Amino acid sequence: MGGNSFGQIFKITTWGESHGKAIGVVIDGCPSGIELSEEEIHLELLKRAPGRAPDTSSRKEPDKPEILSGVFQGITTGTPISILIPNKDSDSSKYDSIKHLLRPGHANFTYLKKYGIFDHRGGGRASARETACRVAAGAVAKKFLASFGIFPKATLKEVGGQTSYEDLLKEIQGEGDSLGGIVEVTVPMLPVGLGEPLYHKMEALLAQAMLSLPASKGFEMGLGFEAARMRGSEHNDLFIPGEITETNHAGGTLGGISNGMPLVFRVAFKPTSSIFKNQKTVTTAGEPATLNLPEGSRHDPCVAIRAVPVVEAMAALVLADLILLNRCSTIQF
Amino acid sequence: MGGNSFGQIFKITTWGESHGKAIGVVIDGCPSGIELSEEEIHLELLKRAPGRAPDTSSRKEPDKPEILSGVFQGITTGTPISILIPNKDSDSSKYDSIKHLLRPGHANFTYLKKYGIFDHRGGGRASARETACRVAAGAVAKKFLASFGIFPKATLKEVGGQTSYEDLLKEIQGEGDSLGGIVEVTVPMLPVGLGEPLYHKMEALLAQAMLSLPASKGFEMGLGFEAARMRGSEHNDLFIPGEITETNHAGGTLGGISNGMPLVFRVAFKPTSSIFKNQKTVTTAGEPATLNLPEGSRHDPCVAIRAVPVVEAMAALVLADLILLNRCSTIQF
Amino acid sequence: MGGNSFGQIFKITTWGESHGKAIGVVIDGCPSGIELSEEEIHLELLKRAPGRAPDTSSRKEPDKPEILSGVFQGITTGTPISILIPNKDSDSSKYDSIKHLLRPGHANFTYLKKYGIFDHRGGGRASARETACRVAAGAVAKKFLASFGIFPKATLKEVGGQTSYEDLLKEIQGEGDSLGGIVEVTVPMLPVGLGEPLYHKMEALLAQAMLSLPASKGFEMGLGFEAARMRGSEHNDLFIPGEITETNHAGGTLGGISNGMPLVFRVAFKPTSSIFKNQKTVTTAGEPATLNLPEGSRHDPCVAIRAVPVVEAMAALVLADLILLNRCSTIQF
Amino acid sequence: MGGNSFGQIFKITTWGESHGKAIGVVIDGCPSGIELSEEEIHLELLKRAPGRAPDTSSRKEPDKPEILSGVFQGITTGTPISILIPNKDSDSSKYDSIKHLLRPGHANFTYLKKYGIFDHRGGGRASARETACRVAAGAVAKKFLASFGIFPKATLKEVGGQTSYEDLLKEIQGEGDSLGGIVEVTVPMLPVGLGEPLYHKMEALLAQAMLSLPASKGFEMGLGFEAARMRGSEHNDLFIPGEITETNHAGGTLGGISNGMPLVFRVAFKPTSSIFKNQKTVTTAGEPATLNLPEGSRHDPCVAIRAVPVVEAMAALVLADLILLNRCSTIQF
Repeated sequence: MGGNSFGQIFKITTWGESHGKAIGVVIDGCPSGIELSEEEIHLELLKRAPGRAPDTSSRKEPDKPEILSGVFQGITTGTPISILIPNKDSDSSKYDSIKHLLRPGHANFTYLKKYGIFDHRGGGRASARETACRVAAGAVAKKFLASFGIFPKATLKEVGGQTSYEDLLKEIQGEGDSLGGIVEVTVPMLPVGLGEPLYHKMEALLAQAMLSLPASKGFEMGLGFEAARMRGSEHNDLFIPGEITETNHAGGTLGGISNGMPLVFRVAFKPTSSIFKNQKTVTTAGEPATLNLPEGSRHDPCVAIRAVPVVEAMAALVLADLILLNRCSTIQF
Repeated sequence: MGGNSFGQIFKITTWGESHGKAIGVVIDGCPSGIELSEEEIHLELLKRAPGRAPDTSSRKEPDKPEILSGVFQGITTGTPISILIPNKDSDSSKYDSIKHLLRPGHANFTYLKKYGIFDHRGGGRASARETACRVAAGAVAKKFLASFGIFPKATLKEVGGQTSYEDLLKEIQGEGDSLGGIVEVTVPMLPVGLGEPLYHKMEALLAQAMLSLPASKGFEMGLGFEAARMRGSEHNDLFIPGEITETNHAGGTLGGISNGMPLVFRVAFKPTSSIFKNQKTVTTAGEPATLNLPEGSRHDPCVAIRAVPVVEAMAALVLADLILLNRCSTIQF
Repeated sequence: MGGNSFGQIFKITTWGESHGKAIGVVIDGCPSGIELSEEEIHLELLKRAPGRAPDTSSRKEPDKPEILSGVFQGITTGTPISILIPNKDSDSSKYDSIKHLLRPGHANFTYLKKYGIFDHRGGGRASARETACRVAAGAVAKKFLASFGIFPKATLKEVGGQTSYEDLLKEIQGEGDSLGGIVEVTVPMLPVGLGEPLYHKMEALLAQAMLSLPASKGFEMGLGFEAARMRGSEHNDLFIPGEITETNHAGGTLGGISNGMPLVFRVAFKPTSSIFKNQKTVTTAGEPATLNLPEGSRHDPCVAIRAVPVVEAMAALVLADLILLNRCSTIQF
Repeated sequence: MGGNSFGQIFKITTWGESHGKAIGVVIDGCPSGIELSEEEIHLELLKRAPGRAPDTSSRKEPDKPEILSGVFQGITTGTPISILIPNKDSDSSKYDSIKHLLRPGHANFTYLKKYGIFDHRGGGRASARETACRVAAGAVAKKFLASFGIFPKATLKEVGGQTSYEDLLKEIQGEGDSLGGIVEVTVPMLPVGLGEPLYHKMEALLAQAMLSLPASKGFEMGLGFEAARMRGSEHNDLFIPGEITETNHAGGTLGGISNGMPLVFRVAFKPTSSIFKNQKTVTTAGEPATLNLPEGSRHDPCVAIRAVPVVEAMAALVLADLILLNRCSTIQF
């Protein structure tokens, strides 16, 4: 329970609004004995920081995380790890002119309807800023995974349907428009046995994790939707002596449990909803209006770009959890 | 916790192996006051029953569900609803000849590695027979939803990449091969506000539900992967006065919360792994072998066909849960 | 979530009404590799069966449990273990004459108010019959614990305030009255480290488990309420070299985590609410009435007597869960 | 899951060590629409603050809470409420001289064994300082409850077995010793129907909540252990027309669900383990040693005194959760 928590054993709870004082994450269930420093977390955060890559928004947050608990003398203690990231560079005033407008593709309409109140500043809780907390928690999960030789790796596969997309991005940015994209994760080495039955299959948890990301619209495992267009005789991965399977169409699991082949999955992201073109909309009172983003607003032309480290972090969180859960699967461990 | 449970408030736990005495589901958290009969559940079960549709496997289970608790004088009482479905037509002997073979696309390899033991008969716990329990529970969820005027509807969109596929299916069946397919769900009328923040977004829970199904390989919401190839100016659904949005590319949610537009998502299924062609494989001892399905084995040429009512049931379960959770979102209900 | 479930990893869900077709329990999270038979569970069930001990009610249920899933060739497989216990000897007609009366000490009033409907037959879901499911699940937990050399043992300490109470019981039974009692659990050998921080302290989970039992009114750990009347210099258990502590006033935990000393706690049970004396009450419509239990009704003169194996079972369930959770506490296991 | 979380819907997660930078709590699931200020939380925190009451330890923490998220324009928004309380007055150096000693009644032994590492400073995670987070969260729960006219009230009933105890306390403090005590909670007005079946009975959740408190050793509901020494004809609360029951021996629930009578329960606390008398102990290396608390150490002579507002806070958290859960009990709400 709790829509702001994820994980069963290695469990995170994130909190914070885009333009509040800070955002943060509490990790409850991280095992003791892991070396951990603020610097390591900071390095991961820099990967998703805006204003770092040429094609991302220009908001500049130092994003210096503070570890407030759960680490003693540089080692995790088994108690909750609280990580706080201050919001330093948030200028909410820019949003004042549009606060009464429903923003296409944004959550202000639904949050207002559901809760009767919405901290609209910078997108509030629904802002992608929350993903910094996921990356911070993912940094801890990665340290745990590294000790087992497990290294999830996310890469950008497509932007706007192109695998080579630099020119397209510049063009679209010039037009004030945006593009969707696809991120792929591979985990080359995974032990057999990770994943729980049925509702906590590896791919079920990964799918939940990925569709919980802002702007994500799809998930596919292994060949994914392509598999739906194949024959069994083509798709089946045949077992071979001395190794595992000849092909890896399944993407690394059988029955939801890792089979020792590389884990492979993809996540689809819609184009950034905030564009620098006028859009027809309505006010919160239901009147027709036009949305014109305030000058100086900062928005990525393609959210998939900055999603890369976030997707990687979520994969790490799922895997860390499944490693711990797997310790409970048989009487002899 | 518990890989065999799904849901937060309206919560199901399924149990049972394909060739055990019975399978079943316990629903904990179904509200009181819902009319419910065994007949209604049976009617839903018949939709997924094998041997009913011309293109499905010929195993014939009466699948007569027994409601063992939680219903009094035809009305749910708020206590757990236990539904049992006997396994009548299970002939395990046919599987004896192949019990020492790793079956391509099947879970016997990973279950054996994870648990050290596997009830291989008919696929055991990993069999699609478990989905009968989901359909039974979904039947209860649908009764609940109906009282709010909510009717999820799943349809088969594609088989083997074709939208018209009868001939292809017969052809493939003649060859002993199988096909993948795509199932689509639409829910025409949904109140605004369903879905919890972040990790329990409507689409996150739907994705978990759908990727927990046997043979499912992908999930997409609204335009899904197609959205990843679009521009923001094309993809954004514009708000319009007096209605909600002009288009419904998003598929019915914003920020993970229903926006009042129809819910639309799709699920990709791989081709049935069990095919009637010889396949190279290895034994559980690691020796090279050939898998030749025993004569009289029953397997669907396309699992997506029988998945239709199961996908619908899982959608119903997610929606029932989110309606209940939404009662807790504000102080005034 | 789910008031009918208990446990985090080794998790049970019980279902069933006293006079329904059957009652049962699903154990999700029992590790694979445990030998288990219906006979072993039956033996545990016989310990709580009515009509066995001279001072318990005369309802005779064979209470033959059926294991419907999760066990293959006599060994647990890691999949859910579904245990069903038929209700054979339930004569609901006796309750017809009192079904419109609020029964002092019973739950029919509160269930009716909460749910608007109540299966009153034999106490329905609120009946102590549900505890048979706990004993069945506890039998499985005990098998798991036994492999670690852990044997929880519950004994009856007091009935009606007396430690020697046979005569008192007969007397009270002759009067148609009932008595309260106290059950004590000791677990001689426990490894250090069981129990999770704060809200899942060993004693917190035990307290929840015990107060979830019908008729239980109190829980105390170690010296319990007596400790509240002591000085620190008396109560503190001093550490001694080569052993653990000199005394065991704490009852086996420090900071909620087992310290290697015997676990000791007690549970208080109120006197059976059903007595064979006329009691003033009101009808469900609010009219004054007199409750006179129907002739031939069966009720224990002291619920604490039959609670002994149930308390033991709940202790076993908590311990099994904590052993599994403890496998996740440090990176090196 | 997660030993540092409590609650199902209104769910808290606490974090922080006694002498770390800060402690805090995240509330996930607090409904929107509640007025909330830092001042209100501060006022609650002052009730448990050391150095305020004459008989409590002299550590002085301003305990000024910061609300970092979840509140907008003074109103809760339905998103997680993160409350941070800085640790200002923590002098860890005093503990250096005793850091290698096992402290009787303390958790350093068990935490070290369980996790292999322990932030011993000021008791680390096992310190009662964590209860400030519970009080902060309880302040929010109380605001929610107040809107329903529900006001839980905790009082100190006994210290060292005495109901009048001021002189005894001074005496014991002079001797450097400590005393146990008993706290009682009453909630005069509760709607009927709060509490979930079986494992989430009102008293089961209260018992878990109370035994999760540092130094608590017992819980009893209504007459509690006294009930175990009574007859049914004495203990039964008889229903009376136009009201609820004549007496309230049960303490406000039937079958674990509130019956409209006042809620009454008690919690037993052991004497403070830290005393200013020399105590024999052993070092973490197993050598005999003497524990002599460093001069200037600050410890309450009776933890039950400062536990009063914490017990009240935990009661408020349980009730808030049960009110929300009860919204899901029937189809018509």
